[in-house]
Amino acid sequence: MDFLSVKTIEQAQDILKQMAESQTPKVKEIPLEKALGKILAHDVYAQENVPSFNRSTVDGYAVYCQDVFGASESIPAILQMKGSVDMGRQAPKALNPGECVYVPTGGMLPEHTEAMVMIEYAEKLDEETILIYKPASHGQNISYAGDDVGQGEKILGQGRKLSAYDIGILAAMNLAKVSVVLSPQVAILSTGDEVVDVGQSLKPGQIYDINGYALGGLIESYGAHLVYKKIVIDDFDLLKETMDEALEESEMVLLSGGSSVGAKDYTKKLIESYEDGDVFVHGLGIKPGKPTILGRIGQKPVFGLPGHPVSALMVCQQTVKIYLSHLMGKEERPIYLWATLSGNVHSSPGKTTYQIVSLQEEVQDWIAEPLYGKSGMIHLLTEGMGYFEIEKDREGYHQGERIRVYPLREGSL
Amino acid sequence: MDFLSVKTIEQAQDILKQMAESQTPKVKEIPLEKALGKILAHDVYAQENVPSFNRSTVDGYAVYCQDVFGASESIPAILQMKGSVDMGRQAPKALNPGECVYVPTGGMLPEHTEAMVMIEYAEKLDEETILIYKPASHGQNISYAGDDVGQGEKILGQGRKLSAYDIGILAAMNLAKVSVVLSPQVAILSTGDEVVDVGQSLKPGQIYDINGYALGGLIESYGAHLVYKKIVIDDFDLLKETMDEALEESEMVLLSGGSSVGAKDYTKKLIESYEDGDVFVHGLGIKPGKPTILGRIGQKPVFGLPGHPVSALMVCQQTVKIYLSHLMGKEERPIYLWATLSGNVHSSPGKTTYQIVSLQEEVQDWIAEPLYGKSGMIHLLTEGMGYFEIEKDREGYHQGERIRVYPLREGSL
Repeated sequence: MDFLSVKTIEQAQDILKQMAESQTPKVKEIPLEKALGKILAHDVYAQENVPSFNRSTVDGYAVYCQDVFGASESIPAILQMKGSVDMGRQAPKALNPGECVYVPTGGMLPEHTEAMVMIEYAEKLDEETILIYKPASHGQNISYAGDDVGQGEKILGQGRKLSAYDIGILAAMNLAKVSVVLSPQVAILSTGDEVVDVGQSLKPGQIYDINGYALGGLIESYGAHLVYKKIVIDDFDLLKETMDEALEESEMVLLSGGSSVGAKDYTKKLIESYEDGDVFVHGLGIKPGKPTILGRIGQKPVFGLPGHPVSALMVCQQTVKIYLSHLMGKEERPIYLWATLSGNVHSSPGKTTYQIVSLQEEVQDWIAEPLYGKSGMIHLLTEGMGYFEIEKDREGYHQGERIRVYPLREGSL
Repeated sequence: MDFLSVKTIEQAQDILKQMAESQTPKVKEIPLEKALGKILAHDVYAQENVPSFNRSTVDGYAVYCQDVFGASESIPAILQMKGSVDMGRQAPKALNPGECVYVPTGGMLPEHTEAMVMIEYAEKLDEETILIYKPASHGQNISYAGDDVGQGEKILGQGRKLSAYDIGILAAMNLAKVSVVLSPQVAILSTGDEVVDVGQSLKPGQIYDINGYALGGLIESYGAHLVYKKIVIDDFDLLKETMDEALEESEMVLLSGGSSVGAKDYTKKLIESYEDGDVFVHGLGIKPGKPTILGRIGQKPVFGLPGHPVSALMVCQQTVKIYLSHLMGKEERPIYLWATLSGNVHSSPGKTTYQIVSLQEEVQDWIAEPLYGKSGMIHLLTEGMGYFEIEKDREGYHQGERIRVYPLREGSL
């Protein structure tokens, strides 16, 4: 086949990273309660201590350690009761030796408090006298100001995909608004004389636009936003017209189909028909996914993905996702599972191979079973649970070898 | 402590599942392109074959096997060229012995085609004659109608959280719209005299409403929708008034704080003040999270969560998430990692303990290191990567034991 500049996946990813990092991500301030799953635009440092005051972690009495030293069931310490602290209020006055003050869980400690004794180990003798039946060590049952987060500490880094817990800690920092990266705007063109939109009736030889919908879902799962989607027949002029529109409305364009070397594979010609168009990958050393084109028109990347759904979607995971992550400055800590392979897997040396697997649990471990099918088989991607990578310099993996399995879906297998 | 009806987490979850399953989930039809991450409302069976016709998986020639039997570089088979198939069009006529037809990748095969020979192994002698240099086996380079998905086959089950790939296969089924479960509507009340909303200034003894924000994020990550959120001081009448409002606007209510047994812990009294109010759990045998109340007002569950953030959020994961999953009929295939514990972990026998860990990779495996802190320490949940469960009849886990680690976040560690 006449691929002009076949690159390895690592080379392609490096180019994409460089392209992405030359851009400045667009940032927006949004209310904290809308921030779940968004990408944090800059580092966040603690503006205050959490907690902001010394708190009790139990219902009990604030004491000096020395006053309860050696206290026991038979010889309790006797302390002078000096009132109680109300929740959400400043402790009225400092504690003096020989005194105790009642503090509820989460209440502010009187100044000079050394320890909290749980009410279970105390008894009220009269309105002014408390018996304590247990000694206490310094700091016992106390959460000091800054124990959770100290003022000035870095709490969350730029690029963090905000979790519910992160939102909690930002609330503790009194951040009612938070700067996040705007979702990049993406256009998707499905090309091919055989492609028909869902909702239309299918004539012999035609297929529904699987790629347009599935790619739309993938880019949304990466945190991007689909702003333009069209099916285009293999007609160069029509393709060019549609590409003009797509470029106007989006920051990057995905095409599926037309990326191979046949007479009607127009993607390369299309990109190069723009004065500032440049194709830097034609043919990718991966399986599935060889007929892939990566290029740019001006500052906007163009991804020419294969027409076969499984190929298109796997290539999207290895190229578009990487570009978007770097564009958004997203911190990459992917979840993957270590698993043991249930059978031999052969691959094509010289190509990085992505093998879909299902997973079963066995004796405190994950067992990965390779799933096979022709590359058009989208049901592999709904039945499979994850995939693993076979490096290009290997001929495969043997049964029993350990592999990293990347789940195909977020949040469930 | 005077907890009235302490239940195990399994008992509590069973009650919640029963409550959830007695409800009929609300269903809505939405456009396919909006369906990512939504819960499928019913099983989907294939309405048609995918592909819907016999397709070529290569660019090449449709042949009879017998015609190319024994063909080689030196003795090619000679076939009569009978035109070509256009993409997206019906193959013009049936193939006869001695003939061949050009078919592009994805093109429809002429009737009676037995195999496809790649163009690499063919040569055009003249406009009407093709030489074939290789034999072909039956079905070679052919994707038959229904190979990917057969008509009538179950493709996706009720309760499936729709992935991008699932959306692709639904597109292949010509489903422009899909029935999904409506997001349950949730109210969150943060109670306590010390709780202040983000954006206000903090006086000594006060804290920001970490729980309201973090719980809001959690329920959103479960697929529910926050419709009502308020901070309420510990005043019974005000609590009752707010609860009335919350019940009116939502299908379930989460309270944080007020679930213990102190004088100002009003949650139990509040639920029981309703004629159809019922508390069935007061005290949960888990750590963190003992001071938990589970009840109902009419058909609506009320979750009385602890005030400490880590406790509130862990209890939410073990109770609210389970209830919502069952209410929505969600298929449960959580992602978890098998890991080896880096040190001993002690627990409280009789209580199910949830231990937060960080993860490192070591010699083709995950190593889990326990993280410790007082239960108010929300930074544990942003620094931790996952948690594991210590069953209530165990005293802990030893270094080197294998554990299932559930990631704290979706999609990243």
